[in-house]
Amino acid sequence: MASLPPVVWSDDVLRHEPRTEVWVGVPTPGTEVPDRARVLLEAVTAAGARVVPSSTYDDEMLRRVHDPAMLDHLRTVADDWAAGEYESLVGQDRVVPYVFPTPGMLDGLPFTPPAATHARAGVWCYDTMTLVGPGTWTAARAAVDVTLTAVDLVVGGSPSAYALVRPPGHHATRRAFGGSCYLNNAAVAAEAWRGHGAARVAVVDIDAHHGNGTQAVFWERGDVFYGSLHVDPGAGWFPHFVGHAGERGAGAGDGATYNRPLAPGTGDDGWLAALADVAERAGASGAEALVVSLGVDAAGADPESPLEVSTEGFRAAGEVLAGLGLPTVLVHEGGYDLGRLGRDTVAVLSAFGR
Amino acid sequence: MASLPPVVWSDDVLRHEPRTEVWVGVPTPGTEVPDRARVLLEAVTAAGARVVPSSTYDDEMLRRVHDPAMLDHLRTVADDWAAGEYESLVGQDRVVPYVFPTPGMLDGLPFTPPAATHARAGVWCYDTMTLVGPGTWTAARAAVDVTLTAVDLVVGGSPSAYALVRPPGHHATRRAFGGSCYLNNAAVAAEAWRGHGAARVAVVDIDAHHGNGTQAVFWERGDVFYGSLHVDPGAGWFPHFVGHAGERGAGAGDGATYNRPLAPGTGDDGWLAALADVAERAGASGAEALVVSLGVDAAGADPESPLEVSTEGFRAAGEVLAGLGLPTVLVHEGGYDLGRLGRDTVAVLSAFGR
Repeated sequence: MASLPPVVWSDDVLRHEPRTEVWVGVPTPGTEVPDRARVLLEAVTAAGARVVPSSTYDDEMLRRVHDPAMLDHLRTVADDWAAGEYESLVGQDRVVPYVFPTPGMLDGLPFTPPAATHARAGVWCYDTMTLVGPGTWTAARAAVDVTLTAVDLVVGGSPSAYALVRPPGHHATRRAFGGSCYLNNAAVAAEAWRGHGAARVAVVDIDAHHGNGTQAVFWERGDVFYGSLHVDPGAGWFPHFVGHAGERGAGAGDGATYNRPLAPGTGDDGWLAALADVAERAGASGAEALVVSLGVDAAGADPESPLEVSTEGFRAAGEVLAGLGLPTVLVHEGGYDLGRLGRDTVAVLSAFGR
Repeated sequence: MASLPPVVWSDDVLRHEPRTEVWVGVPTPGTEVPDRARVLLEAVTAAGARVVPSSTYDDEMLRRVHDPAMLDHLRTVADDWAAGEYESLVGQDRVVPYVFPTPGMLDGLPFTPPAATHARAGVWCYDTMTLVGPGTWTAARAAVDVTLTAVDLVVGGSPSAYALVRPPGHHATRRAFGGSCYLNNAAVAAEAWRGHGAARVAVVDIDAHHGNGTQAVFWERGDVFYGSLHVDPGAGWFPHFVGHAGERGAGAGDGATYNRPLAPGTGDDGWLAALADVAERAGASGAEALVVSLGVDAAGADPESPLEVSTEGFRAAGEVLAGLGLPTVLVHEGGYDLGRLGRDTVAVLSAFGR
């Protein structure tokens, strides 16, 4: 049995229970469920990993990534929702936005922050899929602590560490959440590396979806490379408006963003070729540390993507990433097929455990 | 029985059947129903109004108000939705957005128009309340024809005319629809007046909600005054982000926007005092023609607002507006209490029928 990197864990990541997602107006059972974390913990434990409890951190790194007003919203909105009695009004016990201050809505008019909680929801969340309940802040904040603990393990000498977190983070921008993500753990990890003295950091995102949030956070930054391979938004996939091949960063960040959108049905060979390309650029960026946005929803039969990657594909991906030879923190993102989730994640991690 | 102004009508305004609205993730029966127009037609007919069928107009005036790309979207999206098989996929036969390219989502990233119909929906519609079905374009476009016919009646010598339309329009901006509105009939009427040579036009909006769309269309225009009295968005009411007292226009339009937000429960006296103020400013604007955004949802017991205005209040409002002595087109907007809708509308119109 291959050894694995140390795994950081907090029970609090289980406390986010969205229960439903609303897609095109239809409430459906969500796929980003607490059992994802349980399945992952079981798999890494069975594979012999050392499980390290998370430490507690203040908000300094989090505030480098996110607008403090967004953090205030996320911290308070579930209580405000309960006080607003939306449950007795229409049977909704989760925060779901319904109106959004889009550029088309404002159309040049000045924006005033709204008074109603049901309107505030759409200022900070950009979709109807990313519900907030009583445990959401606790879980998302715990995921940040888990991530920062993993960084500290590597700073302390471990060649790599795995942050076993949910909810995921890579769709959360500096000032909005969405796509089942609330706080951008991978971006926090990259900032933490910078704080520990790494002159340049690379984020490689192998989740099946483009990490629009992480890209946004570092868009104008030359010190953090962001590279992603993902199902092509141009083929109709989330995040739809962002994640295309031509996007390369701006200003000081020009050239430090690199996207490899892939056709549905790509499979192992095309996926691994794209990963080799992204990893090569990550290595060439001069990065002194690596953050892997480790989603395994590229798996065949995953309900959220069509990339058809096998467990052997994920194992090979681990080799490519470990081959960069950089101190590495792997932060969990997507992966919604509970039958493959543990196995595929262990397959990636096993390359890092020597 | 007081005589009424001529009423313009098209059967096609009945063809928009949203059936549901989605509010905070909960599908609820909509209140902007075809029966609203039936009730209104019955009431004005019973009051002895002459009902004039609408004529057909090309898109020239419509394109002065709305981005042609928004019109293309609205014209085609119901067919694209049907072709996308969202009904067999999740049981949704109406177009409902779920992800929105808000400033927070894009967060400085370049925007690419999305490939998927379910993502395109959120580019052009800013809420989950404003569903598009097979008859929506036909009805909204018919409402524009009804409105333009009413303008032509007044240009042809009638002192006033009433455009009996639904869906309403005043929440539709130049490039997005929402708030149960699709095409901005009142804005089209104002543009048509301008096209007929009126140097200045005033829009007075007595709907219970702020007409953010109309305000947006004319925000930087000095030739169209927009004045509105409405329930205060600062007290938690739609359109939430816009409609506050300090908003007065910009550039050439500075001073040509005037809002009188009102507290919930205001009642006749406060509402009529605000109307007198708005009407005075409309008159002082030098307008040569008047467009009234005639919503009657300020009525007590209306499910969509708390302004508590009586039928006598609406009658008095008609007197104030008719007292301006301007050629006037009244364009229907809101009003969702089917028991009061006809009576209150006739009360306003009766001042114009002499």
